[in-house]
Amino acid sequence: MVICKVIGHVWATKKEQNLEGLKLMIVQQSPEYGGGEDSIFVAADSVGAGIGEMVLVVSGSTARKVFGSDDVPADMAIVGIIDTLQIK
Amino acid sequence: MVICKVIGHVWATKKEQNLEGLKLMIVQQSPEYGGGEDSIFVAADSVGAGIGEMVLVVSGSTARKVFGSDDVPADMAIVGIIDTLQIK
Amino acid sequence: MVICKVIGHVWATKKEQNLEGLKLMIVQQSPEYGGGEDSIFVAADSVGAGIGEMVLVVSGSTARKVFGSDDVPADMAIVGIIDTLQIK
Amino acid sequence: MVICKVIGHVWATKKEQNLEGLKLMIVQQSPEYGGGEDSIFVAADSVGAGIGEMVLVVSGSTARKVFGSDDVPADMAIVGIIDTLQIK
Amino acid sequence: MVICKVIGHVWATKKEQNLEGLKLMIVQQSPEYGGGEDSIFVAADSVGAGIGEMVLVVSGSTARKVFGSDDVPADMAIVGIIDTLQIK
Repeated sequence: MVICKVIGHVWATKKEQNLEGLKLMIVQQSPEYGGGEDSIFVAADSVGAGIGEMVLVVSGSTARKVFGSDDVPADMAIVGIIDTLQIK
Repeated sequence: MVICKVIGHVWATKKEQNLEGLKLMIVQQSPEYGGGEDSIFVAADSVGAGIGEMVLVVSGSTARKVFGSDDVPADMAIVGIIDTLQIK
Repeated sequence: MVICKVIGHVWATKKEQNLEGLKLMIVQQSPEYGGGEDSIFVAADSVGAGIGEMVLVVSGSTARKVFGSDDVPADMAIVGIIDTLQIK
Repeated sequence: MVICKVIGHVWATKKEQNLEGLKLMIVQQSPEYGGGEDSIFVAADSVGAGIGEMVLVVSGSTARKVFGSDDVPADMAIVGIIDTLQIK
Repeated sequence: MVICKVIGHVWATKKEQNLEGLKLMIVQQSPEYGGGEDSIFVAADSVGAGIGEMVLVVSGSTARKVFGSDDVPADMAIVGIIDTLQIK
């Protein structure tokens, strides 16, 4: 997983049928935790994350595991909202 | 998913049989949203995207989910046309 | 696999149900072995790794193989603690 | 898919049995289309591509779809020879 | 596949049970063929490669295809020893 911050929303009326109902959030991999200005992605949210929250994002086939159907064409998903992180 | 702009078309007469009938579009990950001059890819389109439109693009095994057959050898697909996006 | 050092922990109360019970560690791909300051990831640990240890980290669908269920939405996992490495 | 140019061949006598018979080509992601000097890969060819031709290359699990067996250990494949491409 | 040079070994006593018996080699994507100083990985070897040899390395789910079991948690594998390569 990568550590991202939720920074926005995307709306797409014309889309794959299996994406219907998914909340699509714009996330940015946090510069303090491995990201850069240019690490911006769109992830489907399954945990109720809000703008400004730090989240855990998974990619690839793993993203489909969270939607109860292997047919959902999403390759990134928010799987957790970070409470605390500690780097030693 | 990544946010891309559709910038062109590719034609290939000699190709894998399971790619027949797919519309292959050249997409560029948008510089304002995480891409660079060099983020150019070819994605199969399933939503009727046109040149100049902003789209959502998925990669890897997820791309095959949109073509109704796991045998389609496409590893990138356009899955939505972006109406609006909001970054806060 | 990539060679990483365990540098921290992440806590997330609100998360995918199938992540419950997994220990989520912050790992950094070691600069001496292919990483940079910005190569920071979160990996689920299955071998009991501790802060400061050098570990082997796998990504993608392979990460799910270590948790006894293909439904675990983790795309990075620590699969070994490095005793020695020798570069000639 | 990425847009590559076929620039060479690789020969390997000692190799995985399931790679036997595959033509292994060295491809370079074209600098005009997203690549750099350092974007050099080896892809298995299934469409009869020749040196100097522009081709479409797929990666990951998608590459295995073109060889009629999921056991072929190739993670990149040439799936089409580009006739024309148009960027607007 | 990427073209790598075998540059070392890794030993890990404490590791995933399904990695037992695999020879873990440190490989570096060759600077002349697409790699950089920082392209260092650990790949499981199935073809008997030795230090200093040029090899073909696969990644992701493809790596598991070479070990006769989909449960082996290795995401990179050496699948061939390069005899000759020719770039035109």
